[in-house]
Amino acid sequence: MDFSVAEVRQILLAADALEREDPLRRAKRLAKRRVALLFYEASTRTRTSFELAAKALGADTTLVSSLSSSIEKGESLKDTGITLQALGAECIILRSPYSGAPYLLAQATGLPVLNAGDGMAEHPSQALLDLRTILQLLGIRASAISEKCLRGITLTICGDVLHSRVARSNALLLPRLGARVILCGPEQLLPKTAERMGPGITIERDFDAALRQSKIVMMLRIQAERLAGLSIDLDDYRRRYQANAGRIAACAPKAPILHPGPIIRGMEITSEVADGPQSAIARQVANGVPIRMALVARALKGGKR
Amino acid sequence: MDFSVAEVRQILLAADALEREDPLRRAKRLAKRRVALLFYEASTRTRTSFELAAKALGADTTLVSSLSSSIEKGESLKDTGITLQALGAECIILRSPYSGAPYLLAQATGLPVLNAGDGMAEHPSQALLDLRTILQLLGIRASAISEKCLRGITLTICGDVLHSRVARSNALLLPRLGARVILCGPEQLLPKTAERMGPGITIERDFDAALRQSKIVMMLRIQAERLAGLSIDLDDYRRRYQANAGRIAACAPKAPILHPGPIIRGMEITSEVADGPQSAIARQVANGVPIRMALVARALKGGKR
Amino acid sequence: MDFSVAEVRQILLAADALEREDPLRRAKRLAKRRVALLFYEASTRTRTSFELAAKALGADTTLVSSLSSSIEKGESLKDTGITLQALGAECIILRSPYSGAPYLLAQATGLPVLNAGDGMAEHPSQALLDLRTILQLLGIRASAISEKCLRGITLTICGDVLHSRVARSNALLLPRLGARVILCGPEQLLPKTAERMGPGITIERDFDAALRQSKIVMMLRIQAERLAGLSIDLDDYRRRYQANAGRIAACAPKAPILHPGPIIRGMEITSEVADGPQSAIARQVANGVPIRMALVARALKGGKR
Repeated sequence: MDFSVAEVRQILLAADALEREDPLRRAKRLAKRRVALLFYEASTRTRTSFELAAKALGADTTLVSSLSSSIEKGESLKDTGITLQALGAECIILRSPYSGAPYLLAQATGLPVLNAGDGMAEHPSQALLDLRTILQLLGIRASAISEKCLRGITLTICGDVLHSRVARSNALLLPRLGARVILCGPEQLLPKTAERMGPGITIERDFDAALRQSKIVMMLRIQAERLAGLSIDLDDYRRRYQANAGRIAACAPKAPILHPGPIIRGMEITSEVADGPQSAIARQVANGVPIRMALVARALKGGKR
Repeated sequence: MDFSVAEVRQILLAADALEREDPLRRAKRLAKRRVALLFYEASTRTRTSFELAAKALGADTTLVSSLSSSIEKGESLKDTGITLQALGAECIILRSPYSGAPYLLAQATGLPVLNAGDGMAEHPSQALLDLRTILQLLGIRASAISEKCLRGITLTICGDVLHSRVARSNALLLPRLGARVILCGPEQLLPKTAERMGPGITIERDFDAALRQSKIVMMLRIQAERLAGLSIDLDDYRRRYQANAGRIAACAPKAPILHPGPIIRGMEITSEVADGPQSAIARQVANGVPIRMALVARALKGGKR
Repeated sequence: MDFSVAEVRQILLAADALEREDPLRRAKRLAKRRVALLFYEASTRTRTSFELAAKALGADTTLVSSLSSSIEKGESLKDTGITLQALGAECIILRSPYSGAPYLLAQATGLPVLNAGDGMAEHPSQALLDLRTILQLLGIRASAISEKCLRGITLTICGDVLHSRVARSNALLLPRLGARVILCGPEQLLPKTAERMGPGITIERDFDAALRQSKIVMMLRIQAERLAGLSIDLDDYRRRYQANAGRIAACAPKAPILHPGPIIRGMEITSEVADGPQSAIARQVANGVPIRMALVARALKGGKR
């Protein structure tokens, strides 16, 4: 997340403007310009929302996924990038299992590369749409974004923080706007020291205690295989870290519940909570398209990434 | 197939109008509106014709298939639906291996869901395009569609009726327009009683006898594996149920031959028949796009499904 | 490659004109016409550039790949073609592992079929974009294309010539314009006699000797598995046939280096050469879209293929 606070404000303001704009007019903004989506990992919401965002602006898109491309033939990221550039792509949206891949691709091509998730490192567009969601929930306008706009706000991120690029991108962004971030989960799924994640971050092993301090909660997907690998008992995990109706009613009865998805119902979150009145999950997804319209429009304007 | 006869007439009339319309004008009807295609099973003709239909009306489409999406990560149908809705999809076109899935998805999202085939249950858009084909072959206009427009017409459906959603949807629709439907095939591939399928339906084990009564014939794909599983001999099947030149010339020399595809040449139908003058197979496919344009346009007008 | 020299000139002139044209105007040329891409093999650059070319002209495209279609259910090429035609496709772009498949598909459908690579036979659009690249490098205009426009030009094609449809298409086209083509590589990867490939072609086993005579060099991808299967030693291959900085500086210090991609860095070509000043690889890819715009536009005008 290399954006300055001022850039974050600009992006969220642009998202507001693009969302309001007449669809036919909006489709003239990037009419017939070319955007390539390069996805080395499966994805529904990120891929689809970037694709719909680019199309909404009138761009022609092309999708290259690892399932049906020269990627299979062992072509390197660099060469695929050079190929897409030579084909006239003016921007590449990249999801990769390797941390740092977007940087390498931008280096290799000189093109704007939008990071749609790179390994366990970052997922910046997700953090931006999460921020938009949080601001909406708190009634803060994009124009008010500043180093202190989230002062006094505590947010808990609970689950497999260690392996989550969403957690990392949020933990990097929100404290810079004044928020306090609590990381919560079993020892093996948290960074050793909170300081490693950056300033404004604390660790709290007790989920109930974390919830009681939080104005907003973000749950993360937990993969059963990963817990098993760490010899964490599933039932124990659910008992201690699941967002269920009883716990939420007792410890955070008003806090909106976020989740970047895909959710695993009955695992880290119950259906009652995911579908309940505090859930902001669909709102997060809905914020994906405007944020990504802003990012794509910005990339094709040749602005700094 | 929940459509009333009046709705069927409206859809086929709309298909006529959309088919005749100037392509550039037609592309303004749903300009920049969003249609999601959610395909949990492989498909060429249904997926492609829905996709081309939506694009012909000017909509932006996005395809989510089980091969490259969060479906792989175990996301539930409900959550994928909520995601697509939050992404701004105004209509979801669903193919699923599970009967009833379109209903569940519509419940979960409140969006119009177009059933592109659900398990062994239904394939309504196929039945509508088959109906359009049949009416064209009989010289009946869409405006004449009524409870008795097919009175006196007998149609045989031959093959694996039991597992065919196409057979089911046709057997539900055609008798409501006055047609008589004969189901034909080996005992193990037919429903136990014709009444189970609905009124106006009879069972006839002897294909030649069925053909002699029929004005129209619809063959179904037969999978060799399925026959083997039922210990039906392949050669015996072909001898008794294959649509080949000799049998057709003898028993139904004028009847158009339909097949929803994909056909297996030399199995349920010979190339001579599939490519011969009585074959209406390509015409069926050609009716797919106008019917699906009508369905998509209808769904996005907010009409009742 | 059935194009006459006059047709080749027309296509390259059309590519020039389409490339220069205003994108919004260009998008009206084939507005809302339908182009189907039928890919039975993985492909990035060919598929993507055909797709972007068709979209740039305003056509609606639909992609059918072997991964998610009735192809899986064993549907024949012929039936898939008839289906695409019935769906309103006015042109099919086909990649197939079988030599001659485009011809069969055109026969079956009566549609223009653009060959995007068929087995080990041909890859005509690649040869055309290679020709455009070569002419640009030599400063020859498309209007000057004739039976002798490449007179005095020698080009070496080095690598697995025997299995390469790119090599074949180039070896068929370039001599017809007056060029001399040298085929180079281990005995097992070359045709038995140069005459088998056509006139104007010679075989030279010594890469250095070939390079010294060449104004232009085209490297081909080498698959390690294939070499192993032929009991060719990898190190020996690299020593004798790799395009590396030392060899190129010594034997062909000014020759542009082409490669149809995907390249395998460190195998048939080093990164130093692939990314160096003599490399024309990205330029080849860039010529893909204009050439394919010209081919698609031509096919939809009903011109002869």
